[in-house]
Amino acid sequence: MAVTVSPLAPPRFPDLPPVEGVRLATAAAGIRYAGRADVLLALFDPGTTAAGVLTRSKCPSAPVDWCRMHLKRGAASALLVNSGNANAFTGKSGREATKLTAKLVAKAAVCQPSQVMLASTGVIGEPLDAMKFAAVMDRLVADAALGAWHDAARAIMTTDTFPKGAASVLRLGASTVTICGIAKGAGMIAPDLGTMLCFMFTDAPIAPRVLQNLLKDGVNDTFNALTVDGDTSTSDTLLAFATGAATGRGVARIANVSDQRLPVLRKGFNAVLANLAEQVARDGEGARKLIEIVVEGAVSKRSARRIGLAIANSPLVKTAIAGEDANWGRVVMAVGKAGEPADRDRLSIWFNGFRVAHKGERDPSYDEAGVSAAMKRPEITIKVGLGIGHGRDRVLTCDLTKDYVAINGDYRS
Amino acid sequence: MAVTVSPLAPPRFPDLPPVEGVRLATAAAGIRYAGRADVLLALFDPGTTAAGVLTRSKCPSAPVDWCRMHLKRGAASALLVNSGNANAFTGKSGREATKLTAKLVAKAAVCQPSQVMLASTGVIGEPLDAMKFAAVMDRLVADAALGAWHDAARAIMTTDTFPKGAASVLRLGASTVTICGIAKGAGMIAPDLGTMLCFMFTDAPIAPRVLQNLLKDGVNDTFNALTVDGDTSTSDTLLAFATGAATGRGVARIANVSDQRLPVLRKGFNAVLANLAEQVARDGEGARKLIEIVVEGAVSKRSARRIGLAIANSPLVKTAIAGEDANWGRVVMAVGKAGEPADRDRLSIWFNGFRVAHKGERDPSYDEAGVSAAMKRPEITIKVGLGIGHGRDRVLTCDLTKDYVAINGDYRS
Repeated sequence: MAVTVSPLAPPRFPDLPPVEGVRLATAAAGIRYAGRADVLLALFDPGTTAAGVLTRSKCPSAPVDWCRMHLKRGAASALLVNSGNANAFTGKSGREATKLTAKLVAKAAVCQPSQVMLASTGVIGEPLDAMKFAAVMDRLVADAALGAWHDAARAIMTTDTFPKGAASVLRLGASTVTICGIAKGAGMIAPDLGTMLCFMFTDAPIAPRVLQNLLKDGVNDTFNALTVDGDTSTSDTLLAFATGAATGRGVARIANVSDQRLPVLRKGFNAVLANLAEQVARDGEGARKLIEIVVEGAVSKRSARRIGLAIANSPLVKTAIAGEDANWGRVVMAVGKAGEPADRDRLSIWFNGFRVAHKGERDPSYDEAGVSAAMKRPEITIKVGLGIGHGRDRVLTCDLTKDYVAINGDYRS
Repeated sequence: MAVTVSPLAPPRFPDLPPVEGVRLATAAAGIRYAGRADVLLALFDPGTTAAGVLTRSKCPSAPVDWCRMHLKRGAASALLVNSGNANAFTGKSGREATKLTAKLVAKAAVCQPSQVMLASTGVIGEPLDAMKFAAVMDRLVADAALGAWHDAARAIMTTDTFPKGAASVLRLGASTVTICGIAKGAGMIAPDLGTMLCFMFTDAPIAPRVLQNLLKDGVNDTFNALTVDGDTSTSDTLLAFATGAATGRGVARIANVSDQRLPVLRKGFNAVLANLAEQVARDGEGARKLIEIVVEGAVSKRSARRIGLAIANSPLVKTAIAGEDANWGRVVMAVGKAGEPADRDRLSIWFNGFRVAHKGERDPSYDEAGVSAAMKRPEITIKVGLGIGHGRDRVLTCDLTKDYVAINGDYRS
């Protein structure tokens, strides 16, 4: 199947500044793909703190188990990511593969294996031959250089149609700090690849507990408010690394969550996460429309989130958007099935700013020609006003097209 | 779009015996469709009891509200069903339409409006012109006859590709009783039709409370264990009517749930429900495969149900089956996302009897050629063994094909 870049992709990969204390290298280890880099190594200066948010799947991959175990110490010296094989559902051999990989990295990078974080994305259920990393490890360590973001973002792609990166540079008291992130996503694909991965890097000096707070809080309204097909990977991994190199420029360590500089840092951190999450939605399998769902007037933010996800995960809503139809009847259906408090006779619905339903009935002044034209745009906002409270939330998704079915069902033919 | 009969359809509509005390008639009222019957009237002999299970949607249709209100009395003299317009999200005019419809039926059939049950299926959000029923009402009452099941099942279809009926005749002490059911389903469709409807009729004499128990219990493992796209209609309606005519043949009234004849009756009743539910899955929009998901070894039946539904609603599993791929990695993913107790390293998975994964790894003796051949069959059973308890359940669904997207997204082009 020919892979064309998503029509919703940004025009080009952004210019990302280097992050002091983070060196990157990629290599082609031949895990599964031919003729492309499939391993990313990130080396961190001493003192780098680490935090993570991992899949809630009850059947996680071996590297997810590894990270969950070793992130507790809140420190990292290296990160190794491979594409092509998820090392998921591989039993004992999968656990052995993570151990061996960490050992290989630790030896070449001169650190403890427990200081090496791991992530794998690709085929599920096939043993991962970790010895393939051995052949490229010394060169990876020798090649590691500041700022090689574009190559890094490319090396972790599976069925993504474009590499995903974002950055934020912000003033933190005496000096500036940099936050860079890369991600891969796109749902899951032939024959059984999976996984959303996101890695955040900053030179700000942040204590592990604070970094964990930053990441967990930031994920809530970004990656956790994002759905392509409602399916959850065995391997979803978000990791954050803070080298603390900015202390050399006079930035004091952020040691607790009451630090007054945290709101500024959080804003920049969340902007990078939000940017990456949106890029993942823009690269949803077969996507031709980016869909933003705004739910207002719910009894709580939590209730608004649930209603938003019910709309975002509804195949009927997603196919209607693919068909450029402002089908508010299906939005009503999705609101109704969410199981959250809602009053049919107070419900209003807008598509790209046009109100199509009001107080439980079709809007009598509904501008059909205007709505039809608006539905042809690549970005669609569905706003739902429940009219029963002050809860508000926002969820991102994409449409459901025949290409999604082709990508996920036709690969055998 | 040309409508072709589902490849999973039964060869023909079954021969259903008449149910004493139930007379049926259909007519073309021109609600939406041209040249076909779109109204069904069922008239019940005096003393008929009624029970119902209605959509859990928080945005139900006006006829659902009507039934919920009037079913409390547990009695019915008539049922009027129309296709073409769901009378959902129609506000005050929708409520007025149900009142007027019930009044028209009551006048022609000489009963109380509160004794008239209603169901509508079709477009959401368009006012229903109940006066269209007035023109055909007297003829419907005059035409009503025993046993017109095939016409009845046809009149309630929207995008169904075949009419659905099933029956059971069983001995109940001194005599036999008959149970007949008709249903329509197929998910939801262009531009915004919805709804699963099912009506059960029997001549057994059953007290309302017992009939409600029978229906609610029967639905649990049939229609509630069925999913096409995970979406819930604003109008889903299951009603049961028991005329009690069998008392004339010496069958005593079943007045409470401890009646010793109830298990036999329940078995026949549930067989009809199960048959109809399977027919609805076989007519899922765009379906080319019927998928049965069996979950064993869960901590409870409830947990097995949730895991089964997570698998059945996974677009990745459904597209894999459409692609005739025994993609057990996606089944693992769906088990993992269900959030129910599961141990990755005890999980086993079978496709049509072939074990492809065992104890958390690919089955070493996995017969790839055998599995490939089995996946070409129109009926696919996915069995998951969790190995942690004795909970078992079964869920029905169908595959997700490009035709589903075409039916639900392409109707504008």
